[in-house]
Amino acid sequence: MRGLHFTKGHGTENDFVLVADLDGTRDLTVEEVRLLADRRAGLGGDGVIRVVPTARASEALVREQAGRAAWFMDYRNADGSAAEMCGNGTRVFAAYLRREGLETADEFAIATRAGVKTVVVTGEQYAVDLGPWRVVDPAGARERGFDSTVRARGGVELPALSLDLGNPHTVVILPPGIDLDTLDLTEAPAVSPTPAHGTNVEFVRAIAQGHIAMRVHERGVGETRSCGTGAAAAALATRWWEGESDDNREWTVDVPGGRLSVRALPDQHVELAGPAVLVADGTLELPSPPS
Amino acid sequence: MRGLHFTKGHGTENDFVLVADLDGTRDLTVEEVRLLADRRAGLGGDGVIRVVPTARASEALVREQAGRAAWFMDYRNADGSAAEMCGNGTRVFAAYLRREGLETADEFAIATRAGVKTVVVTGEQYAVDLGPWRVVDPAGARERGFDSTVRARGGVELPALSLDLGNPHTVVILPPGIDLDTLDLTEAPAVSPTPAHGTNVEFVRAIAQGHIAMRVHERGVGETRSCGTGAAAAALATRWWEGESDDNREWTVDVPGGRLSVRALPDQHVELAGPAVLVADGTLELPSPPS
Repeated sequence: MRGLHFTKGHGTENDFVLVADLDGTRDLTVEEVRLLADRRAGLGGDGVIRVVPTARASEALVREQAGRAAWFMDYRNADGSAAEMCGNGTRVFAAYLRREGLETADEFAIATRAGVKTVVVTGEQYAVDLGPWRVVDPAGARERGFDSTVRARGGVELPALSLDLGNPHTVVILPPGIDLDTLDLTEAPAVSPTPAHGTNVEFVRAIAQGHIAMRVHERGVGETRSCGTGAAAAALATRWWEGESDDNREWTVDVPGGRLSVRALPDQHVELAGPAVLVADGTLELPSPPS
Repeated sequence: MRGLHFTKGHGTENDFVLVADLDGTRDLTVEEVRLLADRRAGLGGDGVIRVVPTARASEALVREQAGRAAWFMDYRNADGSAAEMCGNGTRVFAAYLRREGLETADEFAIATRAGVKTVVVTGEQYAVDLGPWRVVDPAGARERGFDSTVRARGGVELPALSLDLGNPHTVVILPPGIDLDTLDLTEAPAVSPTPAHGTNVEFVRAIAQGHIAMRVHERGVGETRSCGTGAAAAALATRWWEGESDDNREWTVDVPGGRLSVRALPDQHVELAGPAVLVADGTLELPSPPS
């Protein structure tokens, strides 16, 4: 048996397995990522993050970030494929760098396949600039107030707004009389017009000024306990519907896995803040290689 | 932070977190079990097994087994409650005892809340006598061929047989034309007459003589990758419908998580055999106690 050392952590119950490759010599195979992420046959996580020096990344576009960020978040989906970014994952990655003493400042940059991201640590909160966002069809949406409709299983058709945060989101604000908790999200909500490449769907309940609760159905995954870009999209859609344009306004977003904060930054950027918890450390037994 | 050492393992992808308490001085709180079993905020498993000397068990009825079995499988459900037994869990428990050198023979007994169970190890297979079983209403079922009906979501009503293996099971053999793989088990199948305390439902596809495939919806849980007593019930119901009464006949049962073997033993007992894999070892960080 061969062992692979890991750390398991989560951000608002979006969970990850981290593997340190501090000299950049131990890449993960697709099979290893799948075993690490497999909740029943392996360890279990929504994704796997390899911690590697930016200068040692295999992608040239990542290595170019080496002057600005020491460590690269090599994010892999549970199926083994590489992913650009993960909002909740950046916080757990940052918490790991701090615990291991790889970063010691309260503000530092990390390298990702979607470019350099800045992390600001305040107590137990990690804030990350997720980058630019936009309403997909502002003119059309302004005319009708929405640009699409969404229908959850067994539910009614509701008006929705489409946003792009690097990945696609469709946000619905629930009218009074429809309960957020009892929505059936066991299958993908029907979105009309049908998005060519699918979309993440957020159902939002307004709680108070600047405070919303949401549930999310993630494209290709199903309902999850938390989605970082989804929380940001939900807050930004609410802000758009309210006709607001102030920057630096903060929204509290309650997701099933905990509480996040979203802030609209200048230059059409958006910041996501929330907790990160490192839960366990250990060694995964790898199957012996074929002899 | 305080650490709790664990081992994670699975039997046909029914997975468990094991915690060794070799001198019987470290019981687990409900909160600790829940954190160990929580797939997103904690480590993750279908259940938690504390490894404790039988003589040190808190229950007198378990301590009475000490003369026959050295180690007690203190099984906890993911919600923290104590459970009597778990067929797939006994194999993983036995594999752990062997790896740690706590048992060295190929046949040994383990203590459970459902009494002493004998484990026989053959290569990588662990066989466990699950104890007695019975058809709930043999006279009624013999008259009509079945004693109840089951309907999966969106499906048709099918005849079914009820068995008791310490826990309740309702088994359906799929007729030609209904595909096992495409059954919708996202919600509990409707069983008529409605069992007072619920039931586990097995859908079975006959593959060949002595070889079946099944999917299972576990009472209060949902569809799972494997259910040990469910696999036994599926084989025994098939045997009953075929009018067989031979003992020692072996059935191969394919479940989504792997392959099991079921054998009818003399004295109306049933044996379940299958693999057990120990996947990872590590330390869970426990939240600091309130000061």
